[in-house]
Amino acid sequence: MDTLFSKIISGEIPSYKVAEDDHCYAFLDIQPNTKGHVLCVPKVAIDKVFDLPETTYLQLMSFSRNVALAIRKAIDCKRVGMSVIGLEVPHAHVHLIPLQSMEDATFQKRIQLTSDEMDATAKAIAGYFDTLQSL
Amino acid sequence: MDTLFSKIISGEIPSYKVAEDDHCYAFLDIQPNTKGHVLCVPKVAIDKVFDLPETTYLQLMSFSRNVALAIRKAIDCKRVGMSVIGLEVPHAHVHLIPLQSMEDATFQKRIQLTSDEMDATAKAIAGYFDTLQSL
Repeated sequence: MDTLFSKIISGEIPSYKVAEDDHCYAFLDIQPNTKGHVLCVPKVAIDKVFDLPETTYLQLMSFSRNVALAIRKAIDCKRVGMSVIGLEVPHAHVHLIPLQSMEDATFQKRIQLTSDEMDATAKAIAGYFDTLQSL
Repeated sequence: MDTLFSKIISGEIPSYKVAEDDHCYAFLDIQPNTKGHVLCVPKVAIDKVFDLPETTYLQLMSFSRNVALAIRKAIDCKRVGMSVIGLEVPHAHVHLIPLQSMEDATFQKRIQLTSDEMDATAKAIAGYFDTLQSL
């Protein structure tokens, strides 16, 4: 199935990419709850995260952990929250959200960053991701 | 460190238990977003989910997947959402929440079930969890 996220992974739709491996792809949410809000997706387009084969699910969770460790190096926050909701795009995705307060995790407010800010944020997270992978 | 959740795991504080394995424990949230809202916790008391050793983190994620598969057998819902926020109790925990709408995932409203309803819900999920493990 060809989803919005499949088109982002293939490059047909541009994204602020922060990380990629053989099975997964991570990019900035363009309507972020907070600065550094990232979506991690499996390359296979399956709607519900708990319908992923167990191996694929654990690859996504392991990848998301590595991305989260990079986010908290790059972004000043109390902790990185994780959410899988998935009622909007039928392609499983893990939200990783730098949190200062509970409100940041509730999807009730979105912020707007300039394209320069988005680009710098993606590059900062990507840099830490690459460094952590090479350790 | 002795946390609220450590006391629940040890039985010092009672809970509506739904599942347990060597590394993790799952029980109903007593202030649920929706009926069937479960918390999955590692037995080791570490505050932030991304500070868990990778093996422990993946054990928690695998366990949470199995619990989620049981929840969606037991509870009528569009899908099961997953959230890790963790600003309240310093012991990593995965929220698994049966969703009908985005609002159910936002922690903006809580429902109240009777103890009989909580008990029946926990037993229904536990039954499916045990069945799925034995397949």
